[in-house]
Amino acid sequence: MIIKKVESVSKVKVIDDGVKDVEKQVLLGPDDGVPNFIMRQFTVQPGGYTFYHTHDYEHEVYIVSGRGIARNDKNEVAIEKQNVILVTPNEVHQFVNNGTEPLVFLCLIPKS
Amino acid sequence: MIIKKVESVSKVKVIDDGVKDVEKQVLLGPDDGVPNFIMRQFTVQPGGYTFYHTHDYEHEVYIVSGRGIARNDKNEVAIEKQNVILVTPNEVHQFVNNGTEPLVFLCLIPKS
Repeated sequence: MIIKKVESVSKVKVIDDGVKDVEKQVLLGPDDGVPNFIMRQFTVQPGGYTFYHTHDYEHEVYIVSGRGIARNDKNEVAIEKQNVILVTPNEVHQFVNNGTEPLVFLCLIPKS
Repeated sequence: MIIKKVESVSKVKVIDDGVKDVEKQVLLGPDDGVPNFIMRQFTVQPGGYTFYHTHDYEHEVYIVSGRGIARNDKNEVAIEKQNVILVTPNEVHQFVNNGTEPLVFLCLIPKS
């Protein structure tokens, strides 16, 4: 059994033209020997956003705190603490923090 | 994109001799068409506990609120909000709420 505190896991700033003010933590991942899927936590500062992109695997998202918008190519939907979101494979998506507090969410993906 | 509120997902009481005061919510699962893994949330009332058992798949756990104990066949470790836990395949485990508030945690498993 591996037990950690979220705050003990390094935050890495995501540097890319399509991303603003996003930090990533790999809470449970390959270094822990996960067999099938990876638990990451993202922190998006007010005014920040994740990639507007698509890929061939899903996201399972749980909003820990804050509020924002989930976008795909058809809709923008308000999201907040205690929303869960399934982004299906090949679905365009982006998470935007339009609030005043950090938007913190878990985002799980299959291990490649 | 499927978006839900956690509170909108039905809580089902887990009825079994080896379990006390545990409710389960399937936040993202087969009914949502998840491709690879299932996000469940468990609520354990004070004095309650989950199965002391083992199985051939992993758990990835994120403590949302409350406090308790994670047991395996060697140790008992205090857990609380913002701990993450990897239970490896075939590892004996149990979660016990020895606190005064509900112990709420996400527990993800691979889709069988």
